[in-house]
Amino acid sequence: MLDPITMKVNADPLILSALREDVTTEDISTNCVMPDARQGEADLICKQDGIICGLQIFERVFTLLDAKIRVECYVQDGDPVKKGQKMGKVIGDIRTILCAERTALNFLQRMSGIATYTREVASYLEGSHTKLLDTRKTTPNMRIFEKYAVRVGGGHNHRMNLSDGVMLKDNHIGAAGGVKQAVRMAKAYASFVRKIEVEVETLDMVREAVEAGADIIMLDNMEHDRMREAVGLIGGRAEIEVSGNVTKDNIRKLCDLGVDYISSGALTHSAPIMDISLKNLHPADEYRKEKE
Amino acid sequence: MLDPITMKVNADPLILSALREDVTTEDISTNCVMPDARQGEADLICKQDGIICGLQIFERVFTLLDAKIRVECYVQDGDPVKKGQKMGKVIGDIRTILCAERTALNFLQRMSGIATYTREVASYLEGSHTKLLDTRKTTPNMRIFEKYAVRVGGGHNHRMNLSDGVMLKDNHIGAAGGVKQAVRMAKAYASFVRKIEVEVETLDMVREAVEAGADIIMLDNMEHDRMREAVGLIGGRAEIEVSGNVTKDNIRKLCDLGVDYISSGALTHSAPIMDISLKNLHPADEYRKEKE
Amino acid sequence: MLDPITMKVNADPLILSALREDVTTEDISTNCVMPDARQGEADLICKQDGIICGLQIFERVFTLLDAKIRVECYVQDGDPVKKGQKMGKVIGDIRTILCAERTALNFLQRMSGIATYTREVASYLEGSHTKLLDTRKTTPNMRIFEKYAVRVGGGHNHRMNLSDGVMLKDNHIGAAGGVKQAVRMAKAYASFVRKIEVEVETLDMVREAVEAGADIIMLDNMEHDRMREAVGLIGGRAEIEVSGNVTKDNIRKLCDLGVDYISSGALTHSAPIMDISLKNLHPADEYRKEKE
Amino acid sequence: MLDPITMKVNADPLILSALREDVTTEDISTNCVMPDARQGEADLICKQDGIICGLQIFERVFTLLDAKIRVECYVQDGDPVKKGQKMGKVIGDIRTILCAERTALNFLQRMSGIATYTREVASYLEGSHTKLLDTRKTTPNMRIFEKYAVRVGGGHNHRMNLSDGVMLKDNHIGAAGGVKQAVRMAKAYASFVRKIEVEVETLDMVREAVEAGADIIMLDNMEHDRMREAVGLIGGRAEIEVSGNVTKDNIRKLCDLGVDYISSGALTHSAPIMDISLKNLHPADEYRKEKE
Amino acid sequence: MLDPITMKVNADPLILSALREDVTTEDISTNCVMPDARQGEADLICKQDGIICGLQIFERVFTLLDAKIRVECYVQDGDPVKKGQKMGKVIGDIRTILCAERTALNFLQRMSGIATYTREVASYLEGSHTKLLDTRKTTPNMRIFEKYAVRVGGGHNHRMNLSDGVMLKDNHIGAAGGVKQAVRMAKAYASFVRKIEVEVETLDMVREAVEAGADIIMLDNMEHDRMREAVGLIGGRAEIEVSGNVTKDNIRKLCDLGVDYISSGALTHSAPIMDISLKNLHPADEYRKEKE
Amino acid sequence: MLDPITMKVNADPLILSALREDVTTEDISTNCVMPDARQGEADLICKQDGIICGLQIFERVFTLLDAKIRVECYVQDGDPVKKGQKMGKVIGDIRTILCAERTALNFLQRMSGIATYTREVASYLEGSHTKLLDTRKTTPNMRIFEKYAVRVGGGHNHRMNLSDGVMLKDNHIGAAGGVKQAVRMAKAYASFVRKIEVEVETLDMVREAVEAGADIIMLDNMEHDRMREAVGLIGGRAEIEVSGNVTKDNIRKLCDLGVDYISSGALTHSAPIMDISLKNLHPADEYRKEKE
Repeated sequence: MLDPITMKVNADPLILSALREDVTTEDISTNCVMPDARQGEADLICKQDGIICGLQIFERVFTLLDAKIRVECYVQDGDPVKKGQKMGKVIGDIRTILCAERTALNFLQRMSGIATYTREVASYLEGSHTKLLDTRKTTPNMRIFEKYAVRVGGGHNHRMNLSDGVMLKDNHIGAAGGVKQAVRMAKAYASFVRKIEVEVETLDMVREAVEAGADIIMLDNMEHDRMREAVGLIGGRAEIEVSGNVTKDNIRKLCDLGVDYISSGALTHSAPIMDISLKNLHPADEYRKEKE
Repeated sequence: MLDPITMKVNADPLILSALREDVTTEDISTNCVMPDARQGEADLICKQDGIICGLQIFERVFTLLDAKIRVECYVQDGDPVKKGQKMGKVIGDIRTILCAERTALNFLQRMSGIATYTREVASYLEGSHTKLLDTRKTTPNMRIFEKYAVRVGGGHNHRMNLSDGVMLKDNHIGAAGGVKQAVRMAKAYASFVRKIEVEVETLDMVREAVEAGADIIMLDNMEHDRMREAVGLIGGRAEIEVSGNVTKDNIRKLCDLGVDYISSGALTHSAPIMDISLKNLHPADEYRKEKE
Repeated sequence: MLDPITMKVNADPLILSALREDVTTEDISTNCVMPDARQGEADLICKQDGIICGLQIFERVFTLLDAKIRVECYVQDGDPVKKGQKMGKVIGDIRTILCAERTALNFLQRMSGIATYTREVASYLEGSHTKLLDTRKTTPNMRIFEKYAVRVGGGHNHRMNLSDGVMLKDNHIGAAGGVKQAVRMAKAYASFVRKIEVEVETLDMVREAVEAGADIIMLDNMEHDRMREAVGLIGGRAEIEVSGNVTKDNIRKLCDLGVDYISSGALTHSAPIMDISLKNLHPADEYRKEKE
Repeated sequence: MLDPITMKVNADPLILSALREDVTTEDISTNCVMPDARQGEADLICKQDGIICGLQIFERVFTLLDAKIRVECYVQDGDPVKKGQKMGKVIGDIRTILCAERTALNFLQRMSGIATYTREVASYLEGSHTKLLDTRKTTPNMRIFEKYAVRVGGGHNHRMNLSDGVMLKDNHIGAAGGVKQAVRMAKAYASFVRKIEVEVETLDMVREAVEAGADIIMLDNMEHDRMREAVGLIGGRAEIEVSGNVTKDNIRKLCDLGVDYISSGALTHSAPIMDISLKNLHPADEYRKEKE
Repeated sequence: MLDPITMKVNADPLILSALREDVTTEDISTNCVMPDARQGEADLICKQDGIICGLQIFERVFTLLDAKIRVECYVQDGDPVKKGQKMGKVIGDIRTILCAERTALNFLQRMSGIATYTREVASYLEGSHTKLLDTRKTTPNMRIFEKYAVRVGGGHNHRMNLSDGVMLKDNHIGAAGGVKQAVRMAKAYASFVRKIEVEVETLDMVREAVEAGADIIMLDNMEHDRMREAVGLIGGRAEIEVSGNVTKDNIRKLCDLGVDYISSGALTHSAPIMDISLKNLHPADEYRKEKE
Repeated sequence: MLDPITMKVNADPLILSALREDVTTEDISTNCVMPDARQGEADLICKQDGIICGLQIFERVFTLLDAKIRVECYVQDGDPVKKGQKMGKVIGDIRTILCAERTALNFLQRMSGIATYTREVASYLEGSHTKLLDTRKTTPNMRIFEKYAVRVGGGHNHRMNLSDGVMLKDNHIGAAGGVKQAVRMAKAYASFVRKIEVEVETLDMVREAVEAGADIIMLDNMEHDRMREAVGLIGGRAEIEVSGNVTKDNIRKLCDLGVDYISSGALTHSAPIMDISLKNLHPADEYRKEKE
């Protein structure tokens, strides 16, 4: 679960913004026929096998609109779910359920899609000590949700953004005048709590990066044999990340390299959504008993 | 193109929010090595065949940060592009280019992915009078961008949100006490500029909807023969939309029905991104000549 | 009543903004003399005959500041009220009552003024099938409140804004190259859920609009006889709206035309406010019993 | 004119919010027929005699959307204008002109209405030393615009809000235990830069207020003879404000009292708008010559 | 205490902004080790003698994140506290306590520092009728907190900002063409509820200011004897403020002048913080009993 | 200098918020006497020796209000300046200069105070390899400005906030069940780009931390001899930070320990401001020549 503080401070404004995108003035269709509150409940049904993720965001979409809506879940983030499985239910004013349904599902489907896809890719790394990483290739304004989904799926997060990690790429190295200078300048400028990662493309750069004291070396789009040489050259003096169009097909081969991390943009930018729907919305006879 | 007013009033706040997501304090890596401005330029390269979409948003990400950045494009939204094609270049302070690159591409890749996917699905409808529609199954806080991409790809937009279209579903009909009552209540409540759409699942409901004067009837997840009967029943007295897990495989068959619209959530929720990158960033000798 | 979601998502930010306009730092006068909370209650008194409207907004101004304030109403939106009538009371911390009073009344008075005025104008249409419409001539940042008040007064809402309705005026028609082209372009561009309305000034334009398949034709500032001819020409093939300086004096005559809608900007831009005040604020002995 | 800093810091956010109210996604009608920019100009025509006010806000609505729009005015705030008079023109992209027209006029009409009404009421005070004041009975989120219009019309502003003026009403006095205590507490609590105003309803309270050293005494809803006595009692030891349902009919009589100020809520809450429109929008052949 | 309305309307947004500054995505350290809520409590310990101030803001930092956190205080704002004194405790989810601790203390330490420093400076004025004032030399975005701390420390507030007080300085006087003209223009322009203060540097200006009817005269950086003369010249016809690098050393001498106010920027810009910490955070066995 | 992107994305909203704090409606004093723009210029004068810092923020306060204001500086951030030195001038509309002056100086004085104080403390570390660090004890909503001032003064930044650095304190260690477990959990949870810092108070904890593979060990409030032992124990296997009431007096002694970092909250919470003022504002004859 995302911790309650992150929810309050960072997630809530994005969720409210998404709701305003869908309700610029009112939900006309619902208001046509339901001028007054009426209690109801609906089932949250999985329509595809996968890993569920984002139940808390799903719930928050409803409760931000109406604190009395209750979402009951029979599964939790990270659980495998099956097509047809009833994963939970939403109980409360039918008007709110109808109005928030689409936005809530839009979050849940996308997050579950990412968790499902990540779980599959990560499974190819099982048994190795190599970890699967995400990238900054996330959907604009969805990063905290998508990076969380990667974790739920068994992946690990690379840096969150440009402000909390140092990654020196070719242009940085060019501007500094070489790998050595770039690493030195980074150590001088960046907070000492940050590791310095250098992106390299040749064995010469690998050597320079090791000597300069880089904490992490990223082998970017290198050929397989070249990577093997690089791993040997580094010899444990820095952590190693491998990057570049990682797919299900080539990932096993990458495992053999024994690198520390493999990163894949596809986790967040190409995972298909998981189909989920809210079904069987019906009036509920029993009135809510909560104190108000 | 999105018109300049929509950009200013609705897109800019979302773009700025996306930039703040990626730059919570600064781009450390760049600031380590480039304390001062330096002119440069980079090429915008397509890495996959497809339909390009979102060049204006791509540009805006840079110019919102620095009004002097110049983005030159050799293609325009809707153009088919080829793997390896140089689509444009970005010219200006290298620091801004490095900092905004990822956010700009995150928008462009997703929008182009949707346009590309939509173009393909729409091609199956060519020659028929049936139009392809999107849905509200968009990524939270990305709707104006994704719905625009659908249009660029040759699709059409269904309602933008809950406030600007009336769609009466089973729960609305249940609350109203029947299709007839629901349509009547909608006509009484909603602004007269709105058409009334009713979602139906049986032929009885089709009949009721026609009699009630629904403007649009949506056949939801009906069997093919049932749909054919429905079309006959309606007999031109209302527009017809067909919905429900539309895929490349079944869409041709739907064409034969001669309905007005087929809607597909997949256009926005399952289009894979189009791979695009900014390459060959290099210092530019010539200084900028713009008046400042 | 405005539904709770609209209140939360759209009304609350405007209400808070109005409170910040009146309390840039604190309510000095109250803080001078009341350092501590003290319970009190005040009566909501009508000082003029009219239609009350906005009680929910009135209440929200108080409860947004202090969730424990209680507003009890003896009337509801749309009820006719009489000069001197006690319409409700406000119970809670006197400091909050004093601080929020003016802002709460500023909303209530204006909304009730609009409902009262609309009710009167609408009464002239009674017995006819013609409906009274508002326009976009609302006070900036007050539209959802003012359009709601029109509905409470017995009027109907025209489009909410430029994004949820199509209205082709002379300049649009000129740019398109004629009525026919404009309607065609609108049908191609706008979501199919929208009706197309065309504003016409001559009988020739009326003819063109009908032929082009306009859903609604607005007769703008036409002479009475010309309008009668237009109604005949249209012959039920489109809905008809009449517009242009509608007053109490000429509205009856317009009724005779048998058009579908008459729109009037005056409903929102020229309704005088209804005088209402909060009276007899006094300390309350009884302590509040709600759980906190 | 409002100074440029107030415009930037306080007015711009309200103007943008008003534009977002009217353009939740786009101006569909205009976008249907004008995919590209086209230069045009339109005339700003007065349709009623009155005092013009708000030209700067009118202009800002356009220029916030598009910095290249040019608004030329032949009159300035405070000038009397005549029915039919051409007051200025708007030149620029027709799409922006069409889109911003209504919002710009909604501000201008309301502000001019207030200035016109204020000028008339103020004229009854000519020749006396009594000044006309506004109140806090302004439209929510319109206060800076409406209070400015009062000044343009020849009135004066009372306090802007609860935070920048002290006004002790009956409840404050009751809480403090009497007029004397209330004034003493206010002098102790409020910043010394503020004057202390006391609202009184009886001669006894007048006496107390004078003795307590109130800077301003407001005679609230007193009978005429009582007011005359109060003025005598005060004898120049405090400024005097008279309040309570001031109308054109009774205001002359109030003049005779020789008080310093008469305040009227009607200036802002009941002034009818002034009818103004943008006419004759037509394409402009000449291209704009400004550097961009 | 700051009243609850000021807290809600003005303080909360600043507190939330401060929390976002410290939690751009999450409190990683805490989330590493505490995936679930756990109850705990911690002691609020004073580490220096002084005047405590800001307990309510301290509490709000926690409760804005988590409404169930309970802060119990054994002292209240304005109380003198001693090094080592246990001033209160914080009870609730340890994760929230750890996350909000630093932000809460950053407010409390600075506010207490200002109150402590102000109390000391104010003590030198005891026995005189001269009051100690703050200035607008506050930390950006901290004014309401810092000005409140001055009051708690025994000082008084000068104007809150440029919009709620008139202070005519040399440049204003120069622009107006003299003291007399400046005062006249100010009386004409500014709301009559404001006093007019004039900043003077010579005896001639003092004379002019008195004659012009200035309400307050500020002697800015004058020599001591000159100030004495000025006081005599004014002779009770205006309030007198003395300003300019007031220190502990020269303040007593200033007392002898018998002026009404002495203002000191140092109260807010140079008070050292008071050292306070949250200690002994430990798990709490007892579960919370509040209804949720 | 802060890079232009950080300024745009993160600093500008805080600067605008500070301006709104000081201008809730308008600068009355200036508007009284200067209804129209008038060009002027003023000198930026240093009134105390120190290190100047924040010139760019100083400038931005003016240019955010009025893009045509020109600030010319003869010094740059980090330069030592002398009492009486003219450091630059501000040229433009006098009204803007008067209005923004205080806010601009409030930033500049505080940032320069921090830079000055940091420079002095850092000077005691000269010749050693120990670096001076700041903490999170910054003023709420001022962190990016204050941390930048520390860098300008010769200090280094510790983590920016809770989200971009891992620091395991006693409560984290307690929750985890020991140092070893805490470090392991942190490595598992936090992004691999982060170093793991552990705060220790005893030699046993030092030993555990080293064995657990902590990247940085912080010796918190340890006695001097104990620290010396700790340094020996660590033996270069982790970086070492020393913390706890660092003062000018004890810092030299800490140098001898040869640790990597000494952190001091006083840099940001107790630096006195540097006195700076804007003097000699006078009308400028020459008109501005910039293109507009």
